[in-house]
Amino acid sequence: MSKLEKCIVALVEVFEEYAGKDEDKMKLSNAELGELVKGQLSESKIDPEELKDVLQKIDKNRDGQVSYKEFSQFVAQLSQGYFKKKYCKDKCKGKN
Amino acid sequence: MSKLEKCIVALVEVFEEYAGKDEDKMKLSNAELGELVKGQLSESKIDPEELKDVLQKIDKNRDGQVSYKEFSQFVAQLSQGYFKKKYCKDKCKGKN
Repeated sequence: MSKLEKCIVALVEVFEEYAGKDEDKMKLSNAELGELVKGQLSESKIDPEELKDVLQKIDKNRDGQVSYKEFSQFVAQLSQGYFKKKYCKDKCKGKN
Repeated sequence: MSKLEKCIVALVEVFEEYAGKDEDKMKLSNAELGELVKGQLSESKIDPEELKDVLQKIDKNRDGQVSYKEFSQFVAQLSQGYFKKKYCKDKCKGKN
């Protein structure tokens, strides 16, 4: 399996692991999301301010739960922050 | 490093690997994107029709190149297709 495919499979597995704790296995409750962030991102290189900002926008349809679609977009945004931090600092404002 | 963070780092590394082939290391050219799809997704469980569909929408600002932001959104969409395939088949139309 390629690196990219392993990552896609891992994303689904992480979601399953935390969304599976209550009866609705297809959504992350707020509590499950909190556990995921604590378990998966607490000691990460992700900037805490960036994480807080992205977390506030995660529940796009405001139903109080996080679907897989919302979760995958959350991860995409976190990775954009990580990429920016790694490459841009201030070199490429608005280019990516 | 957690599973989720490894995936975030891997996403950036895959982008770097293929975007780094020409002088613009911050963008994937069409040729580089083609190589990435061939190298990373050709034997994958990703449904070829789904892949084709998502690829057509990847270049959101239509500048003929793929930024990291566009790439991370592309991967998020692919993983949504993979999640749907794994869970829904037809059980949860419109729920995720």
